[in-house]
Amino acid sequence: MLKATLLSVGDELALGQTVDTNTAWMSQQLAGIGIDVVLHQTVPDDQAAIERAILAAASIAPLLVVSGGIGPTDDDLTRQALAAVLQAPLELDESWLARLHEFWHKRGRAMPEMNRIQAMIPRGATMIENTAGTAAGMFATVSGCEVFVLPGVPKEMKIMFERDVLPRVRARGGGATIASRTLHTFGLGESAVAELLGDLMARGRNPSVGTTVSGGVVSVRINARFDTPNQARDALDQAATLCRHKLGHLVYGQDDDTLPAVVNRLLIDRRATVTTAESCTGGLLAKYLTDVAGSSACFRVGFVVYHNQAKYERLGVNLEMLNVYGAVSEPVVDAMARGARRLAKATYALAISGIAGPDGGSPTKPVGTVCIALTYPQDDDPRETGTLMRTFNFPGDREMIRDRAAKMALALLRFRLLGEPVPF
Amino acid sequence: MLKATLLSVGDELALGQTVDTNTAWMSQQLAGIGIDVVLHQTVPDDQAAIERAILAAASIAPLLVVSGGIGPTDDDLTRQALAAVLQAPLELDESWLARLHEFWHKRGRAMPEMNRIQAMIPRGATMIENTAGTAAGMFATVSGCEVFVLPGVPKEMKIMFERDVLPRVRARGGGATIASRTLHTFGLGESAVAELLGDLMARGRNPSVGTTVSGGVVSVRINARFDTPNQARDALDQAATLCRHKLGHLVYGQDDDTLPAVVNRLLIDRRATVTTAESCTGGLLAKYLTDVAGSSACFRVGFVVYHNQAKYERLGVNLEMLNVYGAVSEPVVDAMARGARRLAKATYALAISGIAGPDGGSPTKPVGTVCIALTYPQDDDPRETGTLMRTFNFPGDREMIRDRAAKMALALLRFRLLGEPVPF
Repeated sequence: MLKATLLSVGDELALGQTVDTNTAWMSQQLAGIGIDVVLHQTVPDDQAAIERAILAAASIAPLLVVSGGIGPTDDDLTRQALAAVLQAPLELDESWLARLHEFWHKRGRAMPEMNRIQAMIPRGATMIENTAGTAAGMFATVSGCEVFVLPGVPKEMKIMFERDVLPRVRARGGGATIASRTLHTFGLGESAVAELLGDLMARGRNPSVGTTVSGGVVSVRINARFDTPNQARDALDQAATLCRHKLGHLVYGQDDDTLPAVVNRLLIDRRATVTTAESCTGGLLAKYLTDVAGSSACFRVGFVVYHNQAKYERLGVNLEMLNVYGAVSEPVVDAMARGARRLAKATYALAISGIAGPDGGSPTKPVGTVCIALTYPQDDDPRETGTLMRTFNFPGDREMIRDRAAKMALALLRFRLLGEPVPF
Repeated sequence: MLKATLLSVGDELALGQTVDTNTAWMSQQLAGIGIDVVLHQTVPDDQAAIERAILAAASIAPLLVVSGGIGPTDDDLTRQALAAVLQAPLELDESWLARLHEFWHKRGRAMPEMNRIQAMIPRGATMIENTAGTAAGMFATVSGCEVFVLPGVPKEMKIMFERDVLPRVRARGGGATIASRTLHTFGLGESAVAELLGDLMARGRNPSVGTTVSGGVVSVRINARFDTPNQARDALDQAATLCRHKLGHLVYGQDDDTLPAVVNRLLIDRRATVTTAESCTGGLLAKYLTDVAGSSACFRVGFVVYHNQAKYERLGVNLEMLNVYGAVSEPVVDAMARGARRLAKATYALAISGIAGPDGGSPTKPVGTVCIALTYPQDDDPRETGTLMRTFNFPGDREMIRDRAAKMALALLRFRLLGEPVPF
């Protein structure tokens, strides 16, 4: 089993001002290809500390991924530390310098002089292209340890890690193979999903089955560890089939699938469109639908009717209904959905109104109360419509309540598109 | 200045299944009493790796705080590793064993046999009481380095850290205090901000000034390190004033301030409202505005006009204009903003249309091209309007382009509300 270590560089990390999410992400990626991370180190922007950490890492494992400290400012010292442990001078990379000039030129400005340092790399190291920023990465070998240096900006780091680091280290992985698949569910809690999976999750099984939660999405992670890729893949397929059998339509996708992408695909397959009428989510549902490139094929227009007056003026929600039932009520989201569907001439309409907090709750409608309506054409006569309505109570803070509400609206639409009953 | 290192133990951390928040918290606590954290290490539940990390830490700094690996199960090995580096046997602590029995007795159960290990400590170490759980901590001296071992459960760790670790190390710390403040900017890159700050960022200065970037927000972190809290606060205030002087209105807030919250506050102070007309951002701008509780006072309605037909049907954008100039053009965002403002009867309107990618780019309008319009009332005659229009080229992927476009729209509105020229 190949071992690796990680090193994060930055005062903001060492001082605890920023929580390091890069290393957790990289560890997951490496674990997924059967590489054991045996040490993470985090050091401040201090050249001696960075050098010491690189040397310590090189003595422990044959692979090191460093992130951070390659920005253009004086406190970015990873480049200098790498040069020092390599005992090599920093040299100018003309082609990256040209790329930097081009980067600034496109923005109609001259490159600031300080960015020139980002085109310098230690002699003997090679550059790793950064398509999302100015900090190119570096690759070098220190005392037999392969060292990758990536930017600390998560977005840039991830692109480069997936494109350059993973393929290269996967080729070296050797020995056992881990084949992994992750099934995604939304709507039930982690323990409810675990109960459905039952003894598939028992410890010590191979493939192993475990659950993780992120943003309300409960994911089932299956790892099959076998001597050959074929064995691993076959065992993985079997285990995944068993898990899907236990979870049924609760599984909306796997690996890179997202709920918005799955809903987009279902709509486009059916040549159907959806519109949105949002109050408490304030545009987040529309944002999720349009996260997916090409979503204009199924989403043309959405309405953010945050204020009651807007619900009336824009979507024709009856003012008396708003007064009698309140904005957070099933009759109101029903009227919002019907109004939006009529204006947008869409096949489906989703409406959301709720109390995202922190204020505005009451004993009968506490913070977290969210009403969602889905208006759809009747199967037997598409000129007739039906509406599915649900009231939820989501836990958490404002951000979490809004997120769960928007995802739940997508989940409801997905079950409708599948012609399946909603399990919650 | 006293230096310290931190060590976190746990497979879930090394595998990246859990993001380590303990070390960030501990680093902040230590920084607050003037102790420099020069290294964080994270290792899996592997005795050899824990031993190696303890010895490495002891060789670097005279203080080490370890968290995790002292639970009752077989994979908790920090206790054994500490004993190994101390070359001391584990011995039973009768008084803690009695406490454990009492803990379970209170819950009407007998102590599981496996928990007995939690009453064992290496000879020569002392126990640190845990009032919130069964994992007592340990204190020992390894090669002159004071080692505190605490549970990994954040709640238990924090109680013990504050009660036992902080007072003890404060007495040793030599009394320095660090006071910190972060100023936030949006719109210029990190190197442009650094150029404006000039030699305020020079290394070795106290207070120190450094920059970090997150989600396009370039933040300026100021740390003042002095003997007394008063000195630190005064020096911090002075340094912050200097930074603000260099950056001017580019600074939109500090510490917990967010761009949406600042824009909400400016609008509400002026009894003004804003509406949104979004194409490529698909609702994200409205979502940002409504991230802030109470935003219905300044944001009533927003339009997501993702498809060209929606721009025409909903906002009255001229079809010929769409054909001649294209949806991503200044005339079109101007018309979108004017249409939305009229319908919403809002003081201001922001419109965004762009090419978020990954497809849809062309040589003249590559992916990342985004047009933004802000329609506002003229100061001398509020019945008359003006429109500010800008075309940007944002780097990165679809998510990043959409994020930067929505934030840029907020930034433009902020400058208008301040009556200041837009610096980009």
